[in-house]
Amino acid sequence: MFWSKAFIPTLKEVPKEAESLGHQLLLRGGFVRMLMAGSYTYLPLGLRVLERIQGIIRQEMNAAGASELLLPALQPLELWQKTGRDKDLGEVMFKFKDRRDRNLALGPTHEEIITDLLKNNLSSYRQLPLVLYQIQTKFRDEIRPRFGLIRACEFIMKDAYSFDQDEAGLDKNYQLMFEAYKRIFARCGLKILITEADSGVMGGKVSHEFMVEAPLGEDVVCFCPQCSSAKAAKGDSSLCPACQINMEQVNTIEVGHIFKLGTKYSQALAANFSDSFGQLKPLIMGCYGIGVSRLVSAIIEQNHDSDGIVWPKEVAPFDVIILPLDVAHPELMREANSLHQELEACGLTVLLDDRDERAGIKFKDADLTGIPVSIVIGKKGLEEGKLELKLRKDKSTKFIPREEVLKAARGFKL
Amino acid sequence: MFWSKAFIPTLKEVPKEAESLGHQLLLRGGFVRMLMAGSYTYLPLGLRVLERIQGIIRQEMNAAGASELLLPALQPLELWQKTGRDKDLGEVMFKFKDRRDRNLALGPTHEEIITDLLKNNLSSYRQLPLVLYQIQTKFRDEIRPRFGLIRACEFIMKDAYSFDQDEAGLDKNYQLMFEAYKRIFARCGLKILITEADSGVMGGKVSHEFMVEAPLGEDVVCFCPQCSSAKAAKGDSSLCPACQINMEQVNTIEVGHIFKLGTKYSQALAANFSDSFGQLKPLIMGCYGIGVSRLVSAIIEQNHDSDGIVWPKEVAPFDVIILPLDVAHPELMREANSLHQELEACGLTVLLDDRDERAGIKFKDADLTGIPVSIVIGKKGLEEGKLELKLRKDKSTKFIPREEVLKAARGFKL
Repeated sequence: MFWSKAFIPTLKEVPKEAESLGHQLLLRGGFVRMLMAGSYTYLPLGLRVLERIQGIIRQEMNAAGASELLLPALQPLELWQKTGRDKDLGEVMFKFKDRRDRNLALGPTHEEIITDLLKNNLSSYRQLPLVLYQIQTKFRDEIRPRFGLIRACEFIMKDAYSFDQDEAGLDKNYQLMFEAYKRIFARCGLKILITEADSGVMGGKVSHEFMVEAPLGEDVVCFCPQCSSAKAAKGDSSLCPACQINMEQVNTIEVGHIFKLGTKYSQALAANFSDSFGQLKPLIMGCYGIGVSRLVSAIIEQNHDSDGIVWPKEVAPFDVIILPLDVAHPELMREANSLHQELEACGLTVLLDDRDERAGIKFKDADLTGIPVSIVIGKKGLEEGKLELKLRKDKSTKFIPREEVLKAARGFKL
Repeated sequence: MFWSKAFIPTLKEVPKEAESLGHQLLLRGGFVRMLMAGSYTYLPLGLRVLERIQGIIRQEMNAAGASELLLPALQPLELWQKTGRDKDLGEVMFKFKDRRDRNLALGPTHEEIITDLLKNNLSSYRQLPLVLYQIQTKFRDEIRPRFGLIRACEFIMKDAYSFDQDEAGLDKNYQLMFEAYKRIFARCGLKILITEADSGVMGGKVSHEFMVEAPLGEDVVCFCPQCSSAKAAKGDSSLCPACQINMEQVNTIEVGHIFKLGTKYSQALAANFSDSFGQLKPLIMGCYGIGVSRLVSAIIEQNHDSDGIVWPKEVAPFDVIILPLDVAHPELMREANSLHQELEACGLTVLLDDRDERAGIKFKDADLTGIPVSIVIGKKGLEEGKLELKLRKDKSTKFIPREEVLKAARGFKL
C-alpha cells in the first residue's frame, strides 16, 4: 500500500477535541475522525487495526466452536416490550417510527432478537448446544459520549450467545468463552484484570468483567499485586481473600463482559426446545460481549510512548513501513518498490511512504502510525548495499545487508 | 465446520413469506431469516456468501488503487440540509432526535459525509487523486420492501468515492471503476447488462447502471442479442444503433451504479483544494455503488435449478460438503473427520454433515446449500477404498480412489 493513496491525515498539533491521550493519538496518527460527538469515521489505518482485532476474535470464537451470523440493527420495538427491556434500557435505546408507523429501535444489544430467532428455528435438544456470535455495529443514545471510541453512540461489538439444555451445558460454554476471552485479550497485547461483576440490566446470576487498567477508566477495581485476583471496588480497598494483604485500587476500562443468563429471555419470549423425553423446556442461555472498537482505545492506553502508538504485532495496521528518504531518486525508489513487493510476497503487510516529504516528517509520521518495523532507505545505505531497520518499540536501529532483509522479515511477524 | 454447530435451519416446505424464487431458496437453504419486512438476519451460511462477495469486491477495489474506510451510519441531519438532499430523499431517510435533541439521520448513502471528511482533511492537489470506499450497512425507509434481500430497509452496500483535481482525472477513475465492476460481477458468476442511465437524486451528468437479468427485476432494459449493447427501455423496444436490429426487452435488477458527480457536493459543502497555483477549487467527484446484499439474490436468480441454489465457485459458502451416510459407524466417521482435516489443510473450506439423519435428507439439504462439491462416504465405498464425488452443477457423480481425493480437490477451487 502506498501512503499517497491510503489517506492517512496525520496531525502535527494535538487536536483540541481530544479528551484523552488514546483519543489524541488516534486522531494524530490518522486513525479516526469524529463526525459528531459519539460518531466516528474509521480512516483506512484505523479500519485495518479494527479488522485485525476482529480477525483475532473470529479465530478464537471459531476455535471455541462458535458460529458467526449477522443480526439486523433495525428491530421491531415489540420484541423489547415482551421482555420489558424497552423500559429497563430507557433513553439509551434509539426509538422511532417508520413511514408505515411501525415502532422501531436500533439494537443496543441483541438478546431479544437472537432468542426470537432460536424460538422460530430450533426445536429439539438434538440441535443443542449451540454458540452463535456476530461482530456488529450497535447504537446507544449515551448521555455523555466521551473519550473517542471508549464511549460512543455508534460502536462495534462482538456479541455471542450460548444455548444449552441444562445448567451443566451452560457452565461448560461459559468456561469455553472465559478461556477464549483470555486468549483474545492476550493476543491484543493487553494485561487484563478479571472481576466477578453485577449482571445489571442483562439479568442472570453469574457474570465476569474483563478490565484494562487505564487512568481514564470509569470503573474502579481492587486487585491484589501478589496473586493478581481482582474485584469491583465497593467502598474502601480491602484485603485479598487469598493473600490477606491490602488490595490496590486502579481505574479500568471494561472491554469484555460475560453473563450466565439462564432462562430470563427464553421464558419471556417462549423460546423452548423439546428435551429427550419430548417435554418442552426453555433454552438455557449465556451471553458474551467484547467492545471491539473500544478495544482499539484500550490497546493504545497500554501501548504507547511520547511519540505515539506502539501497536502490538498482532493488531498493527501494517507489519512494516518503508521510508525512502528521497522520492526523486530513481534508483532509491526502485529499491523501495522492489522491497515492497518482496516483503508482501513473504506474507507481510507493507506501507510505503512515497510522499515527497522531508525525512524528519516521515520519521515522525512513522512513529505516529505505530507500525512495529521501519525500513529506512537512504542514499548512503543504498551505495553500501545496506538498509536501516528501526523497531518502533524501543527505537533501536541497525543496518543490515540488503540480502538479509527477507530473512529478518520473517521475524517481524509472530 | 460441523453442520451440528453451524446452525443451518433448512426448510422442507416452501415458506409462505417468500416473494420470489431467490428469496424462497435463501430461506429454504438456511441462508437468511426475516426479522420484519425489510430487515434480515444473515445466518452462518448466508454470512459466508456475503463475506466471499465482499472479499472479491475488496480485492478488485484495492487492485484499482482504492483505499477502504468506514463512515458512521449515525449522522447529523445538518449536513444533508446543506445539499438539500434531506428534501430530495424525503421519507426514504430515517430521521429522529436523540436525547439531547440533536437532529439525526441514518445514512441511506454517504456523499455528504465523505465530502465533509475530505473538506476537513485534504487541502492540496498533491494529495489527489484519491479513491475511498467502504462496505457498510445502509438504512432506507422503503415504501414497499420486497423480494427479500432485493429491496430491504437495512442492506449492505459498497460505496466508493473518487476525488480529482480535474475532469480528466475523474474520467480516468471512472474508467478504472467501470473495469473493476466488470471483473467483480464476472467473478460473482453474473452476466451483466450495462446501460447508460439517469443520474436521478445523485446528480451529475454521466452514469452507468450494471443490471442482472431476472424475471422479478423492476427495471426494464432493451438489449441487442447480437452485440450485447443495452439501454434503459423507454416506450417500445427500439433498434440497436450499431446492428440496426430490434432490441429485446428484459426485466433486470440493478446491482451497480456509477456516477460522474462533478462538483455538486464539493460546492455545496465547500470541499476545496488548492491547485498547483495556490488557487482554491472544488473537488471533482465520482461515486460508485454496489448493492452487496442484493447481489446475493441476483446471483441466485442466475444460478439455481429445481433443487436449490447452485453457487458459482468463488461465492459458495463452502468449497466442499462431506456427507458420511452413517454417523454411528466409527470407522466411517473417522474417515469423514480425517478427510475434513486434509481438505482444510489444502486451503479448502469444508462443511461436514455430522447429523444423524437419513441419506435422503442429507442429499436434499446438500442440494439446498448449493455447495459445489459433495463427497459421499458410504460403507460400501469405504470397504473398497473409494469415495463418491458429486458435482452440484450437473449432478454428475463418480467414484474415485481415496488416495486421489486430495489431487482432485485442487481442481475444486478456481
